[in-house]
Amino acid sequence: MMTSKQTKRAVVLLSGGLDSCTTLAIAQSQEFDCYALSFDYGQRHRSELEAAKKIAQSLGAIDYKTLKLDLGQIGGSALTDKAIDIPINSTDKIPSTYVPARNTVFLSLALGWAEVLGADDLFIGVNAVDYSGYPDCRPEFIQAFEQVARLATKAGVEGHPFRINTPLIDLTKAEIIKTGLELGVDYSITVSCYQADDQGRACGKCDSCQFRAEGFRMANVEDPTHYQ
Amino acid sequence: MMTSKQTKRAVVLLSGGLDSCTTLAIAQSQEFDCYALSFDYGQRHRSELEAAKKIAQSLGAIDYKTLKLDLGQIGGSALTDKAIDIPINSTDKIPSTYVPARNTVFLSLALGWAEVLGADDLFIGVNAVDYSGYPDCRPEFIQAFEQVARLATKAGVEGHPFRINTPLIDLTKAEIIKTGLELGVDYSITVSCYQADDQGRACGKCDSCQFRAEGFRMANVEDPTHYQ
Repeated sequence: MMTSKQTKRAVVLLSGGLDSCTTLAIAQSQEFDCYALSFDYGQRHRSELEAAKKIAQSLGAIDYKTLKLDLGQIGGSALTDKAIDIPINSTDKIPSTYVPARNTVFLSLALGWAEVLGADDLFIGVNAVDYSGYPDCRPEFIQAFEQVARLATKAGVEGHPFRINTPLIDLTKAEIIKTGLELGVDYSITVSCYQADDQGRACGKCDSCQFRAEGFRMANVEDPTHYQ
Repeated sequence: MMTSKQTKRAVVLLSGGLDSCTTLAIAQSQEFDCYALSFDYGQRHRSELEAAKKIAQSLGAIDYKTLKLDLGQIGGSALTDKAIDIPINSTDKIPSTYVPARNTVFLSLALGWAEVLGADDLFIGVNAVDYSGYPDCRPEFIQAFEQVARLATKAGVEGHPFRINTPLIDLTKAEIIKTGLELGVDYSITVSCYQADDQGRACGKCDSCQFRAEGFRMANVEDPTHYQ
């Protein structure tokens, strides 16, 4: 069988959770050479970084980088400030786990790396269906950032059409899981919990755990999550 | 004389150079409570950070923060990669001192802090006249980022109109200097040089030094820069 050489490059934001892991699997299936990027941003759930590294390796990313970035210095979120509790069954429209400008910061740094790599494509696993209501997961934000990417960069000025790919944006959590399973993703190594322990075991209670567990139920698939 | 209490807050990007120092002075003169933000991003010219701290204090910023961020891990610029020489008399349209996505990254983090502070205004000293041709200094980039700021944030969704203020954008270097001097800026503490030494003394040769020296000449003002 002939195989053509892969030359398209993409930077894929990889948190270590279910969504970004599926996003990486999708980018790989589209024959991109994938460069996975994680952030050590002062999050409580640091075991997701270990998960991200395992995922990048298991799915065959070309390179994996963790950038250190102390968003705790800015504060304002339950994820970076231990004085703010993680909400359980939150009814807020935008819950306290929202991290100010997080996806803008992450996409900006991904854009910088993409420009250095000569990659025109960025992938981010945002989702506007089974999600927590974060404003920087909406399609209108992604479109606006795409415009910034083209105007901000030397590559953009030279005609590179940066694309922010969001393959999960219209999928339910169950559809995301089914897509990933078809692509051979092992969800047991992903960590979605906002307060996972050092071994990456989930609390089963936070919003993120609940969305995830419900996703496996709706997909009619056994939940491989390691719970505490 | 009655003085009204200042309640407007602004986050001001402060590099330690002439432009951002003047920008902070302008924001202060517009009665903003100013929160100055610098980045320790792996730049060669680290003495600019010492300068930024002095400037923030001398101009009366309420708070001053330096965020650590290793852009050297991404590379692709003469400012963060010592293997790439600083250009002298560069004729490139966009020179090698361009740092991929730098202003997008800086504005994103400033936006995060602004949201936490309840500040609707960001200030950045970009300039599209006597400048190095960086794409992320152009008005169209700033407008696109303003759109991102409104869509990316909880504050934006709740109706806060984030403004990216660029008071220098149409000024020549000489006009910037005259404006700053009228506002009492001491330019001797600013560092513009891309390869300043540990004491903040300038090389006098790089693009940034040349724009600055020419500015003082055109403003007909003695150049207070400390040269090596």
